[in-house]
Amino acid sequence: MIYLDNAATSKPLMQCVENAEKYLLREYYNPSALYAEGYNLHLELKEARRKILSFIADESNFSLTFTSGGTEADNQAIFCGGKRGNIVTTLGEHSAVFSSAEELKQRGTEVRFANLNSDGSVNTEHLLSLIDDKTSLVSVIHVNNETGAINDIFKISEKVKNKNKYALFHSDGVQAFGKIAFKLTKNIDLYSVSAHKIGGLKGCGALIKRKNLVIKPFIFGGGQEQGLRSGTENVFAIKCFGDASENAYERINESYEKVKRLNDVLRSLLDRDIFKILSYEEASPYILAVSAIGLRGETILHEADDNGLIIGTGAACSSNAKKRFSRVVLACGADEKTADGVLRLSFSSENTMSEIKTAAEILNNIVKNRLNIMA
Amino acid sequence: MIYLDNAATSKPLMQCVENAEKYLLREYYNPSALYAEGYNLHLELKEARRKILSFIADESNFSLTFTSGGTEADNQAIFCGGKRGNIVTTLGEHSAVFSSAEELKQRGTEVRFANLNSDGSVNTEHLLSLIDDKTSLVSVIHVNNETGAINDIFKISEKVKNKNKYALFHSDGVQAFGKIAFKLTKNIDLYSVSAHKIGGLKGCGALIKRKNLVIKPFIFGGGQEQGLRSGTENVFAIKCFGDASENAYERINESYEKVKRLNDVLRSLLDRDIFKILSYEEASPYILAVSAIGLRGETILHEADDNGLIIGTGAACSSNAKKRFSRVVLACGADEKTADGVLRLSFSSENTMSEIKTAAEILNNIVKNRLNIMA
Repeated sequence: MIYLDNAATSKPLMQCVENAEKYLLREYYNPSALYAEGYNLHLELKEARRKILSFIADESNFSLTFTSGGTEADNQAIFCGGKRGNIVTTLGEHSAVFSSAEELKQRGTEVRFANLNSDGSVNTEHLLSLIDDKTSLVSVIHVNNETGAINDIFKISEKVKNKNKYALFHSDGVQAFGKIAFKLTKNIDLYSVSAHKIGGLKGCGALIKRKNLVIKPFIFGGGQEQGLRSGTENVFAIKCFGDASENAYERINESYEKVKRLNDVLRSLLDRDIFKILSYEEASPYILAVSAIGLRGETILHEADDNGLIIGTGAACSSNAKKRFSRVVLACGADEKTADGVLRLSFSSENTMSEIKTAAEILNNIVKNRLNIMA
Repeated sequence: MIYLDNAATSKPLMQCVENAEKYLLREYYNPSALYAEGYNLHLELKEARRKILSFIADESNFSLTFTSGGTEADNQAIFCGGKRGNIVTTLGEHSAVFSSAEELKQRGTEVRFANLNSDGSVNTEHLLSLIDDKTSLVSVIHVNNETGAINDIFKISEKVKNKNKYALFHSDGVQAFGKIAFKLTKNIDLYSVSAHKIGGLKGCGALIKRKNLVIKPFIFGGGQEQGLRSGTENVFAIKCFGDASENAYERINESYEKVKRLNDVLRSLLDRDIFKILSYEEASPYILAVSAIGLRGETILHEADDNGLIIGTGAACSSNAKKRFSRVVLACGADEKTADGVLRLSFSSENTMSEIKTAAEILNNIVKNRLNIMA
């Protein structure tokens, strides 16, 4: 099988799993326990925390709390960061932020959604116009999970702070972390990351926050993670996350260049008479959204699967008509016919050029045949 | 090392980990994906859900949502079950319930705590007296995690419903599930369980709920777990949880009897001149709380560790004086001197009689020597 749905989840790195395996069956203790065996794990967690943070932030200014994944980290940012006044976010958010914001609205907080540009990035001017002195939180996704559009969160957060220096700035970095090189700046207050998008395990992520920022816990209990996230720490997954992050950042430029070449070749090989490329050239090369206009993405996905190619669709895909089309793709200005045919091809540096060539062939053939049948 | 801190976390069962390993590196797909490889995992999750539920509930009346652990399940029960009026819980709750209830109080909900009997079980009469027609939720731990005291949640929930049939009844079953035999009755609305206390992995648990009960999600996002818990499902840990549950319930009576013998022998071998046994005979045999009155539990724990014996303390153990003594042990009526010397010995069916005999010897020697030095 050729796997081009790496933005949904990635194959865990064998080496990282093997390195961490001792925390599964041998060093299985509770890291909050007082005996040496527990305390040693506490130190291991501290080391993983430090390591992951070091790749994207100055450790003297930021701290990291492990969570059960990117979704929980986003929930903590939205629910614990944005309680008063209004919050401002975008139509291009992952549902972990978008649905949390909608829930906050249900609970009585005013929520304002900024429009997108046609590439899926946020319309910064519109975003800024929504911010006032009552805004408690602004949340802007770093790399959009459907189109790969990159928001320049460093410039945007600076402008946000110029408009309201008390508004917290959060970014969902799940599709950015370990894939594009960046360093968090002082204007970023909260940043969410996930392990299983970069070769780590499902069930593990982190919320990074500016060190002197005080926010409430989201999950209450034994007071683990300096009181910010209770629950027995998932040592095995956390150690894998540390190693997967190290692996990603050791070769981040090399991987980026490789994936960019794969993306470029796939773009060039897809038949432009039948595929519309939705992702802009400036997007993250890890995600390529295209549309087979006039066809249904889900149908193509299933036929590709039968032919040995695993891909995603842009759409939320539901029998619920309202959810049939991707909210993000529609917000980019696409019509329903385009939105219906969306496919998301997403890469890892483990993909090969020969896989990409085969993938293009499979996709071109499926769509050509379907259009021929319809003609 | 002799491991008698199984109530903190248990050693994962090799066989369960090996069986589930294919979901780590081979079947790594996203279970929400539309292609066959993803959908197959969706079915695997469904099967694990069904299996775990079958051991303790009639599947036609209850459903199960996977969470990141017992703590998250407790948080969902408290925050999503108990928003209006007042909630009633006990002084014997695990901090996942206790701290969540205290947070709910901060947010403006009235929270009432029922007193404990001297064995750590709830004073049912006091609990019932706290319930009125404004009570939206009652939460009573099934097996207390410090003393092993068993609350008869089936009788208690019936009395609760007789007093207020609209009040939801939740129980934290983390120390009961897989250890004592029971079936959920119609008066139990919500029940929390955890994987890593019964040979499963950290980072996985579940909230079981009465099927026709509608509660809000606690974590919002992609709408996984029938919309009740968003975030990519932790397939590997969930499959391990299913297998660990099966292993536990296949031999639940046999394990109970074995652990009861271990507990009985340890009780009889600990020198009664120096140890006060806190856990009652009727408690879960999986937990034995004792106190070396006049000594500090933490000191004994460290010396035991140096001698090859891993045990827990009852106390939350903090440099914070207020947190030095276990809230639960004090609520049982123990004085501070007793509370200071608390040790928690907790068993698994993997422990052997010879380990128990050695453990008694180590503990008797440590305490005797310390008392001699002090004398």
